[in-house]
Amino acid sequence: MFEQQITPRFSETDALGHINNTVVPVWFEQARRPVFELFTPDLDHKKWCLIIARIAIDFMGELHYGTNVVVRTSIDTIGNSSFQVAQEIWQQDKVRVKGLATLVHYDYQAQKSKPIPDQIREQLAQHMTDGSSAE
Amino acid sequence: MFEQQITPRFSETDALGHINNTVVPVWFEQARRPVFELFTPDLDHKKWCLIIARIAIDFMGELHYGTNVVVRTSIDTIGNSSFQVAQEIWQQDKVRVKGLATLVHYDYQAQKSKPIPDQIREQLAQHMTDGSSAE
Amino acid sequence: MFEQQITPRFSETDALGHINNTVVPVWFEQARRPVFELFTPDLDHKKWCLIIARIAIDFMGELHYGTNVVVRTSIDTIGNSSFQVAQEIWQQDKVRVKGLATLVHYDYQAQKSKPIPDQIREQLAQHMTDGSSAE
Amino acid sequence: MFEQQITPRFSETDALGHINNTVVPVWFEQARRPVFELFTPDLDHKKWCLIIARIAIDFMGELHYGTNVVVRTSIDTIGNSSFQVAQEIWQQDKVRVKGLATLVHYDYQAQKSKPIPDQIREQLAQHMTDGSSAE
Repeated sequence: MFEQQITPRFSETDALGHINNTVVPVWFEQARRPVFELFTPDLDHKKWCLIIARIAIDFMGELHYGTNVVVRTSIDTIGNSSFQVAQEIWQQDKVRVKGLATLVHYDYQAQKSKPIPDQIREQLAQHMTDGSSAE
Repeated sequence: MFEQQITPRFSETDALGHINNTVVPVWFEQARRPVFELFTPDLDHKKWCLIIARIAIDFMGELHYGTNVVVRTSIDTIGNSSFQVAQEIWQQDKVRVKGLATLVHYDYQAQKSKPIPDQIREQLAQHMTDGSSAE
Repeated sequence: MFEQQITPRFSETDALGHINNTVVPVWFEQARRPVFELFTPDLDHKKWCLIIARIAIDFMGELHYGTNVVVRTSIDTIGNSSFQVAQEIWQQDKVRVKGLATLVHYDYQAQKSKPIPDQIREQLAQHMTDGSSAE
Repeated sequence: MFEQQITPRFSETDALGHINNTVVPVWFEQARRPVFELFTPDLDHKKWCLIIARIAIDFMGELHYGTNVVVRTSIDTIGNSSFQVAQEIWQQDKVRVKGLATLVHYDYQAQKSKPIPDQIREQLAQHMTDGSSAE
């Protein structure tokens, strides 16, 4: 599991006084950065090889400005060319949001998916939710 | 069904040359505005009575800068206090993204959900995917 | 002068109940789109040839959600390789924000500025604040 | 002087491959947080008493994804009810952006400015550019 601390920005609040719901996918993408680094170690966008296929997000409690949040990121399932990332946002010891993102290993030139290399697959497996390997 | 045209912003692109995936929930929220007006006709945030419980988004094709998109918004299901909004983003006659948002009629003072009033329920029903009523 | 109508988004409000100040540069960039089209008619980012050198923004009144704004954009001064764009945001018949942006005609490959071609210079001049030409 | 480290987000890049210029005011607002805390120690938006009057930003070099930036924030001048915040964004030991923001001590109820209390004035003075006091 990866953990990332994020400081909510004033510009991320909305008129209801909380963090606007559209900010959550931004934080989740930011917290997937260590996953991106498994595929593109130097994070050079010209070598990018991941595309997002689906996100699902459950909003369970309000997120506030003024207190840091922690985003917990783990790998949920690993398929042939795609995998799922499970994420949670915690604030003041309560889980406030849960999300699941499906990412695909992707060739932007050919515009099609490609198998996840074994070496990366093993690294992903080390970050699975239950800590077990992908087998 | 509601239709809204949106002009993609240059600031909404990312280094891969397309619209960044985190922009989609922003466009979807913008396109739910006629739904918001059913609950809060003058859109005054102090009278707001909707909260978002869940979003799920399927990314089916890239979205580009330089051409307008159309967001189609319809009501999918209506429960006692919650309802689902189905949305699609079209660009150049192709559907690029599909989304489903669950909204809850909510009392921010009491911090709990409340039944959708019959009058609003009827209006929501007029915008259901298949055009049929909520019964 | 170019005029563009923008519908404020709920996600652009902040906890003070108004549009957050960081949204203004986003709206201004969006409203410079007709200026971008003078330099890159098809808006293809691979042919982009403008870079921003400076912005200055005066906030004169609050911007609200629920009512459209109009952004007025005109050319203020034209130099050899750079020019200034003057912009105003109006809401309910009051000017709320004034901005001035300095843009440079730029070669991203060579990483240096280049003179504004005469044909574009003439088109820019037609949109100058006082309506007079650049001479 | 205050220093804050920020990790650029992928969603903050644009199609030109760098951080979009509209992100800079967002980072600057985030980095003014210790200044906000001088006026509203618990950062409760219901007690907020600052409003932004003006920003000016000079873009001197490109900002990249993949490497952290440091934002340096200091107080430039202090007037009766307003003060100026000077900010710089550094990446890989080069200053890339300079900004100046004018903030006003403001009564949102009465909708007018109010003098900066002496105690806060002294604290602001301790963070002035040259380290000298406000006198």
